[in-house]
Amino acid sequence: MKKILLLNGPNLNLLGQREPGIYGSETLEVLESHVKKIGNTNGIEVTCFQSNHEGALIDQLHEANALRFDGVILNPGAFTHYSYAIRDAIAAIDVPVIEVHISNVHAREEFRHHSVISAVTRGQIVGLGIRGYELAVYALKD
Amino acid sequence: MKKILLLNGPNLNLLGQREPGIYGSETLEVLESHVKKIGNTNGIEVTCFQSNHEGALIDQLHEANALRFDGVILNPGAFTHYSYAIRDAIAAIDVPVIEVHISNVHAREEFRHHSVISAVTRGQIVGLGIRGYELAVYALKD
Amino acid sequence: MKKILLLNGPNLNLLGQREPGIYGSETLEVLESHVKKIGNTNGIEVTCFQSNHEGALIDQLHEANALRFDGVILNPGAFTHYSYAIRDAIAAIDVPVIEVHISNVHAREEFRHHSVISAVTRGQIVGLGIRGYELAVYALKD
Amino acid sequence: MKKILLLNGPNLNLLGQREPGIYGSETLEVLESHVKKIGNTNGIEVTCFQSNHEGALIDQLHEANALRFDGVILNPGAFTHYSYAIRDAIAAIDVPVIEVHISNVHAREEFRHHSVISAVTRGQIVGLGIRGYELAVYALKD
Amino acid sequence: MKKILLLNGPNLNLLGQREPGIYGSETLEVLESHVKKIGNTNGIEVTCFQSNHEGALIDQLHEANALRFDGVILNPGAFTHYSYAIRDAIAAIDVPVIEVHISNVHAREEFRHHSVISAVTRGQIVGLGIRGYELAVYALKD
Amino acid sequence: MKKILLLNGPNLNLLGQREPGIYGSETLEVLESHVKKIGNTNGIEVTCFQSNHEGALIDQLHEANALRFDGVILNPGAFTHYSYAIRDAIAAIDVPVIEVHISNVHAREEFRHHSVISAVTRGQIVGLGIRGYELAVYALKD
Amino acid sequence: MKKILLLNGPNLNLLGQREPGIYGSETLEVLESHVKKIGNTNGIEVTCFQSNHEGALIDQLHEANALRFDGVILNPGAFTHYSYAIRDAIAAIDVPVIEVHISNVHAREEFRHHSVISAVTRGQIVGLGIRGYELAVYALKD
Amino acid sequence: MKKILLLNGPNLNLLGQREPGIYGSETLEVLESHVKKIGNTNGIEVTCFQSNHEGALIDQLHEANALRFDGVILNPGAFTHYSYAIRDAIAAIDVPVIEVHISNVHAREEFRHHSVISAVTRGQIVGLGIRGYELAVYALKD
Amino acid sequence: MKKILLLNGPNLNLLGQREPGIYGSETLEVLESHVKKIGNTNGIEVTCFQSNHEGALIDQLHEANALRFDGVILNPGAFTHYSYAIRDAIAAIDVPVIEVHISNVHAREEFRHHSVISAVTRGQIVGLGIRGYELAVYALKD
Amino acid sequence: MKKILLLNGPNLNLLGQREPGIYGSETLEVLESHVKKIGNTNGIEVTCFQSNHEGALIDQLHEANALRFDGVILNPGAFTHYSYAIRDAIAAIDVPVIEVHISNVHAREEFRHHSVISAVTRGQIVGLGIRGYELAVYALKD
Amino acid sequence: MKKILLLNGPNLNLLGQREPGIYGSETLEVLESHVKKIGNTNGIEVTCFQSNHEGALIDQLHEANALRFDGVILNPGAFTHYSYAIRDAIAAIDVPVIEVHISNVHAREEFRHHSVISAVTRGQIVGLGIRGYELAVYALKD
Amino acid sequence: MKKILLLNGPNLNLLGQREPGIYGSETLEVLESHVKKIGNTNGIEVTCFQSNHEGALIDQLHEANALRFDGVILNPGAFTHYSYAIRDAIAAIDVPVIEVHISNVHAREEFRHHSVISAVTRGQIVGLGIRGYELAVYALKD
Repeated sequence: MKKILLLNGPNLNLLGQREPGIYGSETLEVLESHVKKIGNTNGIEVTCFQSNHEGALIDQLHEANALRFDGVILNPGAFTHYSYAIRDAIAAIDVPVIEVHISNVHAREEFRHHSVISAVTRGQIVGLGIRGYELAVYALKD
Repeated sequence: MKKILLLNGPNLNLLGQREPGIYGSETLEVLESHVKKIGNTNGIEVTCFQSNHEGALIDQLHEANALRFDGVILNPGAFTHYSYAIRDAIAAIDVPVIEVHISNVHAREEFRHHSVISAVTRGQIVGLGIRGYELAVYALKD
Repeated sequence: MKKILLLNGPNLNLLGQREPGIYGSETLEVLESHVKKIGNTNGIEVTCFQSNHEGALIDQLHEANALRFDGVILNPGAFTHYSYAIRDAIAAIDVPVIEVHISNVHAREEFRHHSVISAVTRGQIVGLGIRGYELAVYALKD
Repeated sequence: MKKILLLNGPNLNLLGQREPGIYGSETLEVLESHVKKIGNTNGIEVTCFQSNHEGALIDQLHEANALRFDGVILNPGAFTHYSYAIRDAIAAIDVPVIEVHISNVHAREEFRHHSVISAVTRGQIVGLGIRGYELAVYALKD
Repeated sequence: MKKILLLNGPNLNLLGQREPGIYGSETLEVLESHVKKIGNTNGIEVTCFQSNHEGALIDQLHEANALRFDGVILNPGAFTHYSYAIRDAIAAIDVPVIEVHISNVHAREEFRHHSVISAVTRGQIVGLGIRGYELAVYALKD
Repeated sequence: MKKILLLNGPNLNLLGQREPGIYGSETLEVLESHVKKIGNTNGIEVTCFQSNHEGALIDQLHEANALRFDGVILNPGAFTHYSYAIRDAIAAIDVPVIEVHISNVHAREEFRHHSVISAVTRGQIVGLGIRGYELAVYALKD
Repeated sequence: MKKILLLNGPNLNLLGQREPGIYGSETLEVLESHVKKIGNTNGIEVTCFQSNHEGALIDQLHEANALRFDGVILNPGAFTHYSYAIRDAIAAIDVPVIEVHISNVHAREEFRHHSVISAVTRGQIVGLGIRGYELAVYALKD
Repeated sequence: MKKILLLNGPNLNLLGQREPGIYGSETLEVLESHVKKIGNTNGIEVTCFQSNHEGALIDQLHEANALRFDGVILNPGAFTHYSYAIRDAIAAIDVPVIEVHISNVHAREEFRHHSVISAVTRGQIVGLGIRGYELAVYALKD
Repeated sequence: MKKILLLNGPNLNLLGQREPGIYGSETLEVLESHVKKIGNTNGIEVTCFQSNHEGALIDQLHEANALRFDGVILNPGAFTHYSYAIRDAIAAIDVPVIEVHISNVHAREEFRHHSVISAVTRGQIVGLGIRGYELAVYALKD
Repeated sequence: MKKILLLNGPNLNLLGQREPGIYGSETLEVLESHVKKIGNTNGIEVTCFQSNHEGALIDQLHEANALRFDGVILNPGAFTHYSYAIRDAIAAIDVPVIEVHISNVHAREEFRHHSVISAVTRGQIVGLGIRGYELAVYALKD
Repeated sequence: MKKILLLNGPNLNLLGQREPGIYGSETLEVLESHVKKIGNTNGIEVTCFQSNHEGALIDQLHEANALRFDGVILNPGAFTHYSYAIRDAIAAIDVPVIEVHISNVHAREEFRHHSVISAVTRGQIVGLGIRGYELAVYALKD
Repeated sequence: MKKILLLNGPNLNLLGQREPGIYGSETLEVLESHVKKIGNTNGIEVTCFQSNHEGALIDQLHEANALRFDGVILNPGAFTHYSYAIRDAIAAIDVPVIEVHISNVHAREEFRHHSVISAVTRGQIVGLGIRGYELAVYALKD
């Protein structure tokens, strides 16, 4: 059975209450169990982790590598725009990483248009709401 | 039955022979019939169009609007990086547009990192190969 | 009798239905017949042309020159911001060109603040709605 | 009867003697009486004011507002390029302002290509000589 | 008894009528008498001056120095963003100057994010409404 | 009774020993008890927290929201200049945040002139020493 | 016998009448027959094509590839400065392309100093008048 | 007898008391009488004017032209760095203008390195203290 | 006996397995014991610490100061390029810090060319592999 | 008989051994005698000079002018990108100069994309290997 | 008797023949003997040196220092815009240096507007023709 | 026995007298004999060369290659910041080059923060005084 890590970055614990016009009204809990269910249906075990700590996310990426996960679905939150440390962590591991953004970051503030991470991820799914996580599972399936 | 337009921009007619290390070895013909099949399976009629002419792509976007298509899957090719005219066409119509890029443009030349179109599309799927078109069909399904 | 070419660029065929809050609710057809009428009243024959194709607009500019038109009223749409080819066409011909924008482009997105064309036009009329076309006729009258 | 303020900024008192190749050979006096005449013909009373003092122009914009003028025709001269104070004055009042430039500023020095004022004016008429002032009267008429 | 100069720059004479959503609904008169009262309660004599003329503000800064004021509360309005002459005036005098902005300039247009004056003021109070002037009095008290 | 969180970011635990010419000679302990006392006098309970960990500061901002604090006084230290994650945390919560800087950051190194956080805070108090925290209490009082 | 495609971009159909001080006084017709003659003398068949349509030029590049031409001499006109679509076409084909500019673009307007195409061409010949086309034939000969 | 205008801009009235380490310890009065004396010795009548008002300086430049002065020695103070209005005034008149700066502006803050005025003055004398004014008199003598 | 802290930042725990072509094949463990041995030979006690958490590195720098270490050898990993918080920590302490990079960062991606930390370190040793740590010990010895 | 100077700049003495993948495997000696032979065949005497010293190249350009050479073929090597002194030398002399680069500089490092010299040369031949020198001889022939 | 070194940089040996519209028609020889004469009249011995070699100019600056010259008049020619080595030489010596430019560099190409040398010279005299050298002698006299 | 070339660039001949606060008080002579001694102790013959001439440094780099030196220790002085010719020389040779800077260039003027040379050197040692040369010897030893 394949193993995927669902990694959510800073402020995503507030999903559902945080600017619902932008991020939707579903909570992180709902999102995580939805992705787990999609995973199950597709024969994939999904482990979930969220943190507001950059270092904790890096630790998890290393761990996913050590434990030979088959893929990471990563929403780096605002770290997208400056965390070269997360970028290096992705480049340092063998597990493919798909970057997901709930909102269309390109339609928002200027600083959200640039990702320091995209160059080392496998691909990006942006602006498709929490549906984007689901598509990422499909993408990592094969 | 839903109707989706699959719109491919300049040089995508060369798929399969053009830099296969970057764009894969499947031809446009294969891609289009694959997406049509995925569409059929999901109760969606997929119309395909490719052109190297910016104006022809704009005309098609207008047409899709006039004919009340339910969605457009657009790979604008290199127009991604400068065609404000295509951007305006997308903003001018009511049909939701999903932008797809076969390769991870953020891992390539600097000029490919900026899209003048993303701000007015519904979302983007990048770097997941021709699989990205398939995911776009799923995203437009609901 | 003087001859003027009214040249409208990409997406202006959607006038009236496209973002009416920005571009107003009158169609291109209405606009063109209005300008023709103003022309007639002032002893000027107005020929109208619209295209989403950059090359077609260039061809028309060349044609206007070959046919010794007395002026061109040009709304280049989004080509304003990147079509150095249209710029060169204007510089290459002897017919004076007046650049018109319906909306106040300087109050909109950053990319609309810069015109690659203005330097070679006779002048610009910006933000005065379709009234701007009418003023351009007056400007070309003498 | 409508009331319009014709406001000319720094160095425009030298019209006629200042670089006539760029600004033409008519004096400010001639310009002002011409615009007044055009106004009269169209049922509009035109008040004229010129100053080299930024503060005096701001005071006049406030005054035009207090006296409920129907429009301002403003040639801000070189203040166009840096006077955020005039910009704020325009934004602060209810009277519509049309920005006029005699020469085609986009065909001159780099610094003249950017206006800090255009975003808050109703529209701009550029490069059409003193004819531009006349067109501005027409634009404000309705 | 301490002496403080309250110096308001361009367009602040329109307080209360100018974009009340941004600047609040109290007039300059009310603001000035409020600050005077706060001053009195704290044993400080507050002198008030407003002008739309950059030079007049500079003259006042020089005057405050000559008359040995104990502090200046300065809202430079739009001069904040380009008046190096006011900057030099502040650097040239011995009186400490506190810069106040009613609105949160960092949440508004790009050009308002940069102050050419802050480097030579004692400090800045930004975005706290007319309350900011009151806090500035407290800051200058000791 | 109102509740305020006093949040100090990286290196502020060194207050008093760290570059006293810039940050003054009082320790964080003294600062915190001073602000608590000012709070008490004004009927406000002040809770204090300092951390060198970005994630810990974000956690605290979320906590302050969950516990319905009435305001946060935040000195983000160097995070001011790059922590879009803290910015998002502030934007995600309902508690008003006032940004305080002890030194006049605009008179120091170039990189300190830009705050990625100011746009989402209520306001800023800069350069007024530890007095700035006191003024922030007054600002949050009403 | 070798086959070369001579491809001229927008406005080059006006050669001879367009700014002769810059582009010389010979027409496109003369240029094309001159290059054909040079070709013949060197055992090379030269096919000529000019268009103001970006898409048509791309189509021709693809065609030259399909027909196994031995080289392309390309004067992209103003497309030089923004047509990433033509760049991609050149990168996608196996035929070597030599970029030719009649005038010394580096001695003209700023925007002409940058070519988005040069990185993928074999080489460039610039500023040597229509002589440049002749040298390009020699270069492609071996 | 030749006539020269000595024009000093904002804050130069504070010469002698303003940052004497940078600007020296002599007052404006002393400077002006020194330059007058040098003028007398060289058969030149020197008229002096200082203002903190940009508009007043422009008025004086116009006046010098109207009165057919033979030269202007101009220290624009901080207006050097942004007053395009003064630049235009200099370009508009026939009197040659020499720009003088007391301190070496290139060894000070970044913003002082750029003059918007130098391009239209005859020449500049920078960093040579009040001696620079004297040299300007010699330069204008012939 | 002198005390030195060897501080390694994010992803350096993966040394040996992470891109060995760039970072070499020796593990962090080997590196640390090598540096300890070099230290011993030179009469220096070397303490080692690695973390992926920015805050933990800052805490260690503070601790090294409190415990009066004689020097810090710091490889900040990717924090080099954005952690102004680490920069401030270095500036806040009295212990000299030498910055070490294993690879020649100037020969890699653009973003690695700029260090926000170098200005406050004593010096940098770059591109000399793990040998660089050894040289840093020598440098701190005297 | 015409006289041409073949001028090669820094590091071109290493031709053949220096990065042969980029610069080819022929030595400077071979190149020079090849160009001389081409010259002879075309009735042109070719003088050769190479130096790593910027000043020596300038001296040669002056000399070529004094001796009334008919043309210079110049490969400025890395001086291309910063030697404004060589630029001025070319502008100062009457002899036409053709700039040659062996490799396609536009396909290499960013800094090689800009030439400070091209604006004052007659034209450029780039990326065509040592064949470029030969073409330059043809270009200077007439 | 005072000793001054007159140092002229690249291409100034061509004075009189090089672009006389910009640099005047007098030769370097005439200039040098003129400055020597002015020197003599003022009790100053003037030594002259010109070179197209950056290193030779640096050597001379060092020599002037070793021989305790009282001043250097330096026209760095195009080295003005990039020779940080000459800048360092000036900073390294005790002899005051005055920078002279014959033409008004600020009215010419963009690249001539920036001097990397001015920050370390005593002052600059620009645009006053060869008269500028004479004024520099007066400036160094006292 | 290994052979190393110690190459010092412009103004380093003034070591000891030039800004000793920055560069220390030891002369070049002392430095060179110190490095020679260190070399001897480590079985390395050190040859020394200093020049203010860029071309002479390039010649030496070529020579070191021809004579099969085992390494070069290079302090390029101010050439660090613009000499692409020295960069090319380093790239063209097989001898490894270590770049040394006596002062911490990153703590000095902006222009010193960028090296055009670092990308092609083996590594850099910066800010460690003349000790840096010694460490470079150790680095080249193995």
